[in-house]
Amino acid sequence: MSNPFFMPKGVAIIGASQDAHKLGHGVLRNLIQYRYKGGIYPVNHKAYEILDHTCYPSVSEVPDPVDLAIIVVPAHAVADSLKECGERGIGHAVIVTGGFSETGDEGKKREEELLAIAREYNIRIVGPNCIGTIDTHTPVNTTFVVGMPEPGEIGFISHSGAMVAAIIDWASGSGIGFSRIVSLGNQIDINETDMIRSIAEDPNTKVITGYIEGVADGMQFMKQAKETAKEKPFLMLKGGKEESGAKAVASHTGALAGSTEAFKTAFRHSGIQEAETIEEMFEWARAMAWQPLPKGNRVAVLTNAGGPAILAVDALEKNELKMATLSEDTKSFLKKRLPKAASINNPVDVLAGSGPGTYTLALEALLSDDQVDAVVVIQAPQDWFLPVSLAEVVGEVAGSHDKTVITSIMGKASVEDALKILQKRRIPNVAFPERSASVLSAMIDRRNWLTHADTEIGSPRNIETDKADKAVQMQDWQSLLELYGVRFPEQHIASTPDEAVAQFKKIGSSVAIKLVSDDISHKSDVGGVILGVNSEDEVRSAWTRIEKAVKDHGGTMKGVVVQEMVDDAPEVITGFVRDDQFGPMVLFGSGGTDVELYKDVDMAIAPLSATAALDLIQRTRIHKKLTGWRQYPEGDIESVVDVLTALGQIAIDYPQIKELEINPLSVLAKGKGSVALDVRGAII
Amino acid sequence: MSNPFFMPKGVAIIGASQDAHKLGHGVLRNLIQYRYKGGIYPVNHKAYEILDHTCYPSVSEVPDPVDLAIIVVPAHAVADSLKECGERGIGHAVIVTGGFSETGDEGKKREEELLAIAREYNIRIVGPNCIGTIDTHTPVNTTFVVGMPEPGEIGFISHSGAMVAAIIDWASGSGIGFSRIVSLGNQIDINETDMIRSIAEDPNTKVITGYIEGVADGMQFMKQAKETAKEKPFLMLKGGKEESGAKAVASHTGALAGSTEAFKTAFRHSGIQEAETIEEMFEWARAMAWQPLPKGNRVAVLTNAGGPAILAVDALEKNELKMATLSEDTKSFLKKRLPKAASINNPVDVLAGSGPGTYTLALEALLSDDQVDAVVVIQAPQDWFLPVSLAEVVGEVAGSHDKTVITSIMGKASVEDALKILQKRRIPNVAFPERSASVLSAMIDRRNWLTHADTEIGSPRNIETDKADKAVQMQDWQSLLELYGVRFPEQHIASTPDEAVAQFKKIGSSVAIKLVSDDISHKSDVGGVILGVNSEDEVRSAWTRIEKAVKDHGGTMKGVVVQEMVDDAPEVITGFVRDDQFGPMVLFGSGGTDVELYKDVDMAIAPLSATAALDLIQRTRIHKKLTGWRQYPEGDIESVVDVLTALGQIAIDYPQIKELEINPLSVLAKGKGSVALDVRGAII
Repeated sequence: MSNPFFMPKGVAIIGASQDAHKLGHGVLRNLIQYRYKGGIYPVNHKAYEILDHTCYPSVSEVPDPVDLAIIVVPAHAVADSLKECGERGIGHAVIVTGGFSETGDEGKKREEELLAIAREYNIRIVGPNCIGTIDTHTPVNTTFVVGMPEPGEIGFISHSGAMVAAIIDWASGSGIGFSRIVSLGNQIDINETDMIRSIAEDPNTKVITGYIEGVADGMQFMKQAKETAKEKPFLMLKGGKEESGAKAVASHTGALAGSTEAFKTAFRHSGIQEAETIEEMFEWARAMAWQPLPKGNRVAVLTNAGGPAILAVDALEKNELKMATLSEDTKSFLKKRLPKAASINNPVDVLAGSGPGTYTLALEALLSDDQVDAVVVIQAPQDWFLPVSLAEVVGEVAGSHDKTVITSIMGKASVEDALKILQKRRIPNVAFPERSASVLSAMIDRRNWLTHADTEIGSPRNIETDKADKAVQMQDWQSLLELYGVRFPEQHIASTPDEAVAQFKKIGSSVAIKLVSDDISHKSDVGGVILGVNSEDEVRSAWTRIEKAVKDHGGTMKGVVVQEMVDDAPEVITGFVRDDQFGPMVLFGSGGTDVELYKDVDMAIAPLSATAALDLIQRTRIHKKLTGWRQYPEGDIESVVDVLTALGQIAIDYPQIKELEINPLSVLAKGKGSVALDVRGAII
Repeated sequence: MSNPFFMPKGVAIIGASQDAHKLGHGVLRNLIQYRYKGGIYPVNHKAYEILDHTCYPSVSEVPDPVDLAIIVVPAHAVADSLKECGERGIGHAVIVTGGFSETGDEGKKREEELLAIAREYNIRIVGPNCIGTIDTHTPVNTTFVVGMPEPGEIGFISHSGAMVAAIIDWASGSGIGFSRIVSLGNQIDINETDMIRSIAEDPNTKVITGYIEGVADGMQFMKQAKETAKEKPFLMLKGGKEESGAKAVASHTGALAGSTEAFKTAFRHSGIQEAETIEEMFEWARAMAWQPLPKGNRVAVLTNAGGPAILAVDALEKNELKMATLSEDTKSFLKKRLPKAASINNPVDVLAGSGPGTYTLALEALLSDDQVDAVVVIQAPQDWFLPVSLAEVVGEVAGSHDKTVITSIMGKASVEDALKILQKRRIPNVAFPERSASVLSAMIDRRNWLTHADTEIGSPRNIETDKADKAVQMQDWQSLLELYGVRFPEQHIASTPDEAVAQFKKIGSSVAIKLVSDDISHKSDVGGVILGVNSEDEVRSAWTRIEKAVKDHGGTMKGVVVQEMVDDAPEVITGFVRDDQFGPMVLFGSGGTDVELYKDVDMAIAPLSATAALDLIQRTRIHKKLTGWRQYPEGDIESVVDVLTALGQIAIDYPQIKELEINPLSVLAKGKGSVALDVRGAII
């Protein structure tokens, strides 16, 4: 499917200028200079010819074929130009001109006018107030920015024109090639979400990157992004942390689910990997475009010096990668081939005197070892062989295996030629060995996401809908959750000591016995509550004591409540909150009153499959405690997964519930389930 | 004080070689090529002349003055060469040759031999198995590595020779200049600690950096480092995370104080700032060498584009820097001078059309504003003026103020000339605006450290030494801590109801009344413990109930204990542990049983001044809770400071105590002190 923003048949430049200082000149210059092969039609009624191209007085006179207009006339004249494009049958326009909604109300009105024209004539618009589009393979460059990135496999979508300009300039010195680039400007028509598919469907694009400051429609964004991320790596830098402001929240869950966390959650859900810095994003992108994803997290380091290898290992371990344990075969081969003093354990140190030949043998051995998923090849500068030779052999050996290889040929002045070879051979190089860790870690994250991107939500529970509807209406959260299978402490009323004993036996654990009385209100003050009752005798004795206490205070006793005592078990918080942009999100983490202090919580988009629920639980620190850490017995994580999926389903079934929170949920030992001790909620 | 390793009067190269592939040739070549001006004396009995320099058959024949020998002969011949140096009266030697302790026991023996010779002849040694030393100002380069960094203000000490080689190569392309560089090798004589002062005392060195993998003597290292850091910024990259292994620990404190944490604590104590990556270290170093430290953390951002400024602001705020609130004067000036659509609030956006003139006016206004401590100047690439012009004006304007200025002139291909100007004008540039945050944050950390680097320890408490000695001997930790002023719950014995009432009044808060009896052991089971007693009447009634309960069980009552009930208050953990390398360290953090799960703890070297104790408390998350966060009343932080300083003093006073831990320490509301609820300790 041809997309005229990136593969136009002919381009009209409305506002093309003779004046080399004007944007309308820059756009024309770029189209010509960067060798766009279709028709280039400057439109300017004051000129006959610009840069050797015939100038047309009006777009109506531009010859066929033409399917894209770049509009660079002053703001007040844009509407007329757009209308003329419509009349001429041009269906796509990049509006470079600024001076619209970014400047205030008047500009906002102008945008509305443009949008009306676009709808009338069925024109798709990028901009206004943008830098334009680039496709390095077509090639076409509709921007006025000096420079053109090398053709490559990375697509880039940006809310900031300046970021596009900066990246074009930076890329040309960095060995990072691009496929398609788009600056979205004010997005009156096409927004970041619309653009995702245009980039993803491009066969030259292997990785999608983006700088965004927000999304137009959270749900739509997640849908498009997830579909895309299943096919190609999707990396994002998010600018601007929106303040949660004075938002009134009913629960910890609400307080913890700020906009930043919501974006992180939506990104993770969609398979978008969020980078911290521009460099990090493109370092990841390059590795993903060039190398296969590692099949596991066992990394071997091959080096000619100790210090740099130590830095790499430190960083790898910090990023939860594992140092591969080499097989005996590999070790005995290395022992035979490497210098006597070399280290044949991982990291493999071939020592300073070894050259490309030794590196070749060692790399081949490591890549052939089943215990190794990825290799980081480090070369500290030395004088007795050219780094280019190492680059060549690493490229060659890596190319005959299907494993991830990253190099760190260190230095700057002496290694430029080697970096060019690596680029040609598609081996990503990091300037310092410690940076290999972030790259490998991002690749493994992607592999992990892919393995459960398609997990089913699971068949929804059978709920007694009438009862649930009523519970929601009454805001009776306990009943609602019980209908969805969440357990609260078991309790029964007993009107005789025998009944109380029977209930105690039914519960089958330590119980509390609590007075039921119409005329005594502060039951514990009068001795009407007895905790930790553990035997039939104790039940009977409790009954007697309560009976006596009631008599002493001149009240009447209707009976007792026999209530399950919940063991001293780890307490978690869970709930859901409805984000303005991305809809309902389920939260999970360390519970209790200090939840906002430690913020050991994470979120996932509702509804949740059991796999997604388990993944959410595993992202928190409290998970360690639930797996039987230190003095704690192994907790019933399965029951927690049930509670999380139930909450996810409630969030979908009842959109009128704004927040719902269980805190604490007491997680009992494996096999014993989990018990909700308190719940609160709020209706929208 | 002249140091022959960096300012030799004459250098003998023992093992100088004709063969361009040998290290002994490289060393000679570097001395000559990098223009060492003293005598250069190759020693080789097989040659008459190498590289136009007269060759001497033996070091004994080398003419005066000569005070440094570079030894590059094979390992087995090093001892003889060193002895000859001794005979000749050369007091300093760099032993480049490898093949010593790094290869095993035989090599280790050779090292011992060398050290004996060195001691006999009073020779100081760098190495063996090292790359040597560089002073770019002398200039002298005793290494064989190709390349010489530009003269600059950064000193670098390294345990890894490869790191030195990599950095020499990298620096030459990065605009980072060095003063002195040393590769320490196997450190048989001079180690990292000895070398600190040699680097620090060099007037050309403004910042000391280092890559170390361990320290020879922790206490000595901290002493030298702290003295140095008070004078000059001291930055460090630590390689290798030593495993704490199967160390037996008696407490949470022991488990939490691993080797990595100990190094971090020792570094912080000494004023060493630990960088995460090589780039980060040198980015910090350059900024500290070139720019004044900011006086506060209020940052203004000056930009010509929105996106990059957003990334900078996000990163600054994440690093706990504050966006400066500009004064009205500044804003009205900017309003007058900047384009109409410009943003005059921080970040100040001069818009894409503005040139160096507008930047000049805006930067001058920001630097003149009392509300601003530092300015980050961002330029996204544009076509209508040269980045060099911006570099010039920023350098000029910044030079006339005493505030921190960092630029981010973005791009690569188009900005190389601008970067050279910035280098000349001593303005640090970061390739991407978000990286300014880590630099400014490190500078502010240094300023903060300097403000309390000299805080006094405070006069030691007057302790009844006899009693304390005895308490330690008995391992009676409660008594010991009480002698040092730590409070435990108050309790008194009463043998009549009247006495109990008197004790209750004395305690002045809610109390527990507990039976004292010789013949009843499970006191709470028989009703012998009554909690939450709040009035005189309740005390008397409690007495009566206990008396009755004792009678019912046929026991005897000697009286009761009236014990202070500690309010439900935030619980912290504190204690000290003795690190093998750095001695006693006081730990503080969130208390309770989950302390190892959240690891909200930090440490400081003992003894602690009150300021250092407060600083330690403020580094933890629980600090927020103690300052009156959410539902919590303001806690008695002063009393916690007292406990921490007491623990620090005990650690010094009783070196035989290995670990001592209070967990939990209940921090009551301000003015009410804090109470130790449990304590454990261990003797070495």
